[in-house]
Amino acid sequence: MLVNRRTLRIEWAQCDPAGIVFYPQYLIIFDTSTGWLFERTGLSPSAMRKKYGIVGMPVVEVGAQFVQPCRFDDEVVVESHVGEWGRSSFTVRHRILKSGDLALDGFEKRVWAGQHPEREGAIKAQAVPGEIVASLSDATGKTPVALD
Amino acid sequence: MLVNRRTLRIEWAQCDPAGIVFYPQYLIIFDTSTGWLFERTGLSPSAMRKKYGIVGMPVVEVGAQFVQPCRFDDEVVVESHVGEWGRSSFTVRHRILKSGDLALDGFEKRVWAGQHPEREGAIKAQAVPGEIVASLSDATGKTPVALD
Amino acid sequence: MLVNRRTLRIEWAQCDPAGIVFYPQYLIIFDTSTGWLFERTGLSPSAMRKKYGIVGMPVVEVGAQFVQPCRFDDEVVVESHVGEWGRSSFTVRHRILKSGDLALDGFEKRVWAGQHPEREGAIKAQAVPGEIVASLSDATGKTPVALD
Amino acid sequence: MLVNRRTLRIEWAQCDPAGIVFYPQYLIIFDTSTGWLFERTGLSPSAMRKKYGIVGMPVVEVGAQFVQPCRFDDEVVVESHVGEWGRSSFTVRHRILKSGDLALDGFEKRVWAGQHPEREGAIKAQAVPGEIVASLSDATGKTPVALD
Repeated sequence: MLVNRRTLRIEWAQCDPAGIVFYPQYLIIFDTSTGWLFERTGLSPSAMRKKYGIVGMPVVEVGAQFVQPCRFDDEVVVESHVGEWGRSSFTVRHRILKSGDLALDGFEKRVWAGQHPEREGAIKAQAVPGEIVASLSDATGKTPVALD
Repeated sequence: MLVNRRTLRIEWAQCDPAGIVFYPQYLIIFDTSTGWLFERTGLSPSAMRKKYGIVGMPVVEVGAQFVQPCRFDDEVVVESHVGEWGRSSFTVRHRILKSGDLALDGFEKRVWAGQHPEREGAIKAQAVPGEIVASLSDATGKTPVALD
Repeated sequence: MLVNRRTLRIEWAQCDPAGIVFYPQYLIIFDTSTGWLFERTGLSPSAMRKKYGIVGMPVVEVGAQFVQPCRFDDEVVVESHVGEWGRSSFTVRHRILKSGDLALDGFEKRVWAGQHPEREGAIKAQAVPGEIVASLSDATGKTPVALD
Repeated sequence: MLVNRRTLRIEWAQCDPAGIVFYPQYLIIFDTSTGWLFERTGLSPSAMRKKYGIVGMPVVEVGAQFVQPCRFDDEVVVESHVGEWGRSSFTVRHRILKSGDLALDGFEKRVWAGQHPEREGAIKAQAVPGEIVASLSDATGKTPVALD
């Protein structure tokens, strides 16, 4: 699987009165990191929405285990990859490392979702395109999706 | 002018490693407080959007002065009213009080905005309806807008 | 078990461009709801910290399943209770209901944590006081903890 | 004056149901951008706190004008510099540009604050060290502050 890595500095805005990252902030990091992982397909979020007619990739389940706290000014590495592919869903796994040690890990289960054909405002799960699966399954990151 | 008052408890989520409210959180409180003030017209946000065909009330200017910090678990009172009415804009003034003393005050200048008739995705300022002005200018809060 | 219920209106600030609650916002709601649940003991967060010498109740694991989205202006009910008590940890279960139907449920596993006696800035799990367990296990909510 | 520039991609987490950045999010960007500007002195936030014995640089006034909205996936440039130096306060000016055009500008007036010598938990304004002023006034960015 293709693993996307980001290096981040923990911001003041992310920390609580205990001086550590307020845990929902990690889920915001997960969300953005999934975005960056999917950009490794070569498509920006808006290009992906346009090309496949999806409205997004809503989260249906999330989980995280916190091993050690991160603090303001810590440098952390976020590693993200798709751990499992279903037909119309997939699970993105995230690990956040501090000085090389695991600070927390977690996952987001998401659905590849288009507009529901009949009910306005509702969504309908669609099969994840094979080229997306192929691109993010290529550990070398050399299988971009053609824009059109 | 009609002054809307809310009593809030400062949440852990709103505080930073200095143990005080992280200042952008006050702007979130402003935004929500403006929502509650406009509900005093008798219209929910969605009812207001529907009745007048507006897309919202985007902020064009904001400012705040911080007098004393608020901390986790503090009880505060938020007082909000429309300070000035323009033709298609208005200024909401907010004061946050702690134990009766001013902690901060600020304002949001907002526009009464509809969908632009020609440019998709763009907005166009519209005249604030007289009944909205009248309702929020009535200090007794007894002039609701008819939903019709 | 004592179930604490809160009624909330979904705020603009909590919603994303899909018009639904951005999922990490639910975790912020969980965090605050745990705070209100523990206030049913009769102790405010600061009183609890002072009485028992704890630094807080850090989260070690979190999870949530999303069944249906909530939108701006929706009224939701948050139900929270302690599902399991360990010696020095406990699991708070949260359910968020919209018009009586489940929108999502989730949990936070937390530790009852004091200052570590030897390592500055580190924490050490402590046994949850029996009177806290008793108070939150009383479904009638009539067993407050003495402030003394 | 030294101008610090950051290039950011607008995140899903920062946008509201109108599809644009929720305005308090810009203040979070201001806060973080001030942090990066002050790192141009050569001192990390924690090194600065340690070297000068300050507890932080709390904001006493803030303001912003919004010219055009930014949307999810937009690339923006944040330009930050100290516009005015007082004895113990200073004003950081921020401009956010989209495709080279101004999207918004704003300021934060902050205080260089140490622990109050007599009142626990209170802060006391201190004179901004001359070397900090010199470093951030040098447009070439070549005047770092010595760590000790």
